[in-house]
Amino acid sequence: MKTLADELFREFREHSVSEFFRKNAAMLGYTGKVRSLTTVIHEAVTNSLDACEEAGIPPDVVVEIKRMDEDPEHLRVAVEDNGPGIPERFIPSVFGKMLAGTKLHRMLQQRGQQGIGISGAVMFAQITSGKPALVRTSTGDGKVVEVEVSINVDRNEGEIHTKRVVEGKWKGTRIELELKEVSYQRSRYSPFHYLRMTSVANPHARITLEEPDGNRMVFERVVKEVPKPPEPMPLYPKGLMADDLLILCRASKSRTVAGTLTAELSRMTRQKVEEAERLSGVRLDKKPRELTWEEAERIVKAFKQMKFMAPSSSGLRPIGREHIEKSLRQMYEPEFAVAVTREPKFYRGGIPFVVELGMAYGGKAGKGEEEGGGGMELLRFANRAPLVFDQGGCVITSALRDIDWGRYSLNPELSPLTIFVNFCSAYVPYTSAGKQSIADEPEIYEELRFAAMDAARELRFYLHRKIRQREREQRAGIFEKFLPIIAKRASSLAGEEPPDIRPVLKKVTGLESDGGE
Amino acid sequence: MKTLADELFREFREHSVSEFFRKNAAMLGYTGKVRSLTTVIHEAVTNSLDACEEAGIPPDVVVEIKRMDEDPEHLRVAVEDNGPGIPERFIPSVFGKMLAGTKLHRMLQQRGQQGIGISGAVMFAQITSGKPALVRTSTGDGKVVEVEVSINVDRNEGEIHTKRVVEGKWKGTRIELELKEVSYQRSRYSPFHYLRMTSVANPHARITLEEPDGNRMVFERVVKEVPKPPEPMPLYPKGLMADDLLILCRASKSRTVAGTLTAELSRMTRQKVEEAERLSGVRLDKKPRELTWEEAERIVKAFKQMKFMAPSSSGLRPIGREHIEKSLRQMYEPEFAVAVTREPKFYRGGIPFVVELGMAYGGKAGKGEEEGGGGMELLRFANRAPLVFDQGGCVITSALRDIDWGRYSLNPELSPLTIFVNFCSAYVPYTSAGKQSIADEPEIYEELRFAAMDAARELRFYLHRKIRQREREQRAGIFEKFLPIIAKRASSLAGEEPPDIRPVLKKVTGLESDGGE
Repeated sequence: MKTLADELFREFREHSVSEFFRKNAAMLGYTGKVRSLTTVIHEAVTNSLDACEEAGIPPDVVVEIKRMDEDPEHLRVAVEDNGPGIPERFIPSVFGKMLAGTKLHRMLQQRGQQGIGISGAVMFAQITSGKPALVRTSTGDGKVVEVEVSINVDRNEGEIHTKRVVEGKWKGTRIELELKEVSYQRSRYSPFHYLRMTSVANPHARITLEEPDGNRMVFERVVKEVPKPPEPMPLYPKGLMADDLLILCRASKSRTVAGTLTAELSRMTRQKVEEAERLSGVRLDKKPRELTWEEAERIVKAFKQMKFMAPSSSGLRPIGREHIEKSLRQMYEPEFAVAVTREPKFYRGGIPFVVELGMAYGGKAGKGEEEGGGGMELLRFANRAPLVFDQGGCVITSALRDIDWGRYSLNPELSPLTIFVNFCSAYVPYTSAGKQSIADEPEIYEELRFAAMDAARELRFYLHRKIRQREREQRAGIFEKFLPIIAKRASSLAGEEPPDIRPVLKKVTGLESDGGE
Repeated sequence: MKTLADELFREFREHSVSEFFRKNAAMLGYTGKVRSLTTVIHEAVTNSLDACEEAGIPPDVVVEIKRMDEDPEHLRVAVEDNGPGIPERFIPSVFGKMLAGTKLHRMLQQRGQQGIGISGAVMFAQITSGKPALVRTSTGDGKVVEVEVSINVDRNEGEIHTKRVVEGKWKGTRIELELKEVSYQRSRYSPFHYLRMTSVANPHARITLEEPDGNRMVFERVVKEVPKPPEPMPLYPKGLMADDLLILCRASKSRTVAGTLTAELSRMTRQKVEEAERLSGVRLDKKPRELTWEEAERIVKAFKQMKFMAPSSSGLRPIGREHIEKSLRQMYEPEFAVAVTREPKFYRGGIPFVVELGMAYGGKAGKGEEEGGGGMELLRFANRAPLVFDQGGCVITSALRDIDWGRYSLNPELSPLTIFVNFCSAYVPYTSAGKQSIADEPEIYEELRFAAMDAARELRFYLHRKIRQREREQRAGIFEKFLPIIAKRASSLAGEEPPDIRPVLKKVTGLESDGGE
């Protein structure tokens, strides 16, 4: 018997993840001509910086944007780095397969974490210009591989079209993408602004941009040290769900659950395993694959009751307050700059993160002329990668909006202030695959507020001192004007020579003793 | 030779889409205890309403939320509908495979469009409670199938655990999910509010909610007609990209490109095909599979120069202004209600959409007490499904925020106003897989503004009339007070009887002639 449901389900189909994101490219940030171009460059530069950092190489990234013909919306983008290169056999998957990569399954602080980004850029190039990506890469083994690669959307697979191997000493990766329906300009949402922000948060990187008109500019390296390569961060027992534990056990090579726990979790000592066994009533010498959901739930519950050392945050790589201040001074030439790098904290029970926040006041800081001039400017970063879009939905925005700025003698509409925020974590809770805003986790919100208040207090000291200084100067002005007259009149009344009043003046106005503060 | 890159790429892996969304559940709306519960219910109810509508059945949806034990965050949710049911062989894919469904590839106005939602809900249940979903369904063929189904995250596949088939006359689908780490309450983000909003936008549906405390409430059907089933909407030539055209040609069963164009696109007549052939210089009698990218680009370019009838919007199913007004009156008992359903418009060159906007003023309209009371409340919908979260990033919010409300004698902070907005389209440009906010497409933004101004003008008429009325009443009050005294004094001065001043009073205050306006 044929029912209506059978009829309706005739249209039932399966789809590949590439097909999904082709249809919903806006979810990856491909919306609008300016944003689409910035997204392409963001994905390529992110990969380059991650690769250099993992290999301990000071990054030297060159971005070239060239016009192809008279159509101003037809551009060729090249991003080249001096990183470790990509082994030939991984090229199709790196550039042509979504949800493939070295990052998705590891707890490692990196800019990328999804295995979607660069394949998405290849797809965008392909659906607007019809052209595959040109990739040139070498791992430093004397061979330079150059291939044309595209993405097979139906199968979510990379396809190689042409391949050329030449001898060469060069090491690194270069990707060239031909794009249509994109637009180059210098607004807040442009590649120019994006790379400028990237440079602020990556003072160890040298970034070169060649604009379509041939103009070449270099954002120079400000500090020499390369951040230490990120370290894998094992999961923390208190942040674990029963399902996580079962997945660990299923994949484990240990012979017992106890072995899995000590191998896979942080802060799990022999003693802690015994305590968990006692509290949960689950025998931990059983095979990992035999653990049931109910047992896993009991173990996780036991973890929540136990005391552990705070999770290790040794794998986190904040920029550091000195480097942030240095970057801000160099970029904004402010009257005053301050930065704080807070201690590591944890969200969702055990995911470590660090908040860094810097403020630059005066000089070129604050909203630029093109945005009406004056008022606070907010620069958001996650693991040093700029977050340029979707500012409204980000916890950084909401946490800072809720600060009572008046208490710090600041006015969001008027103060010439640039606030720099970097959120570091091995897992950034993005609200969407476009990775432009961070979800509102209560611990993150709180920590952002504390960081803002820390920095704002320093800035308030500076501002109050400035006000006191100005008052003193005004006071001094009055004394300077009238004291000599009084001295003269008094001495003439007394029939004496006018005395040297400069020491008195100094004492009264207090300018000398406090001036160096 | 082993390079550093080889070492770094040892960690390269492929992942399934389920694995991706398991790790990034926040992207599907699973963030926070309240929102997670609402998201589960949203996914199930959305599917039920879509299924009923496609089958032309007046929906009767029952949502039951029950506590399982003393843990208030351990709930069992059941959603049952009277829809067409699901054929047995599709059950594993519908509930256990992401990116599978009847919606992703069709241009059809429905609430769901991704093939992710309900599998995401099954996954959330599974990772919090460890329990598979219980599904009972019948297509009306006399058999009721009951299965336990879960999602294999590594392979992105549904797995059946138990199965039972019984005889029965019932038709419909019921899904039961056991959830942990969720929280039931009655806030703005709760299932209660969600279903109430769903009822406003679906006056043809009967929705029953049973809360954990046993309290049962029914949002009754307000109108009898079921909306016509949605119709597939062929693509419009002007909205096409070269890549779209190539995909159509690759999948086409026609023998020529010309045949593909007339079969797959709207508004393509024989004459239009000839015109496209002439303008593009591409021979359209060639086989569809032989069309090259360059030729596709030339054809698409030709389409952009040609004139076509406006795209058909016959497949769109707006609620209609009368039904919106009826819903608003019933829900808010306002002093005044107005709604507009605008004419179809198009974005991205050819995707049709309709904006509907209603306003309820006074009565219970506006922000409730729990939100500080007073001021405008915004209810957003896409294809009649409520958008409860991520209000900040949605074009509906930004379009309405940019209205100069003062011109309409309204104050966003004070006016007791509820604004209802429904966006209808076969393709809603959501900003993320969580489907809670709509991307900022310029044509959509404009159209939302026009709709708001249309409705606001009506409301202004009402408000001005109300002010005039009040002024008249005040004027009348003065006359009523003093006219009798003047009449009395004057008549006593003249030595006459006081006259009947009521006709004069009526004439002066104008109350009778205008009162019925």
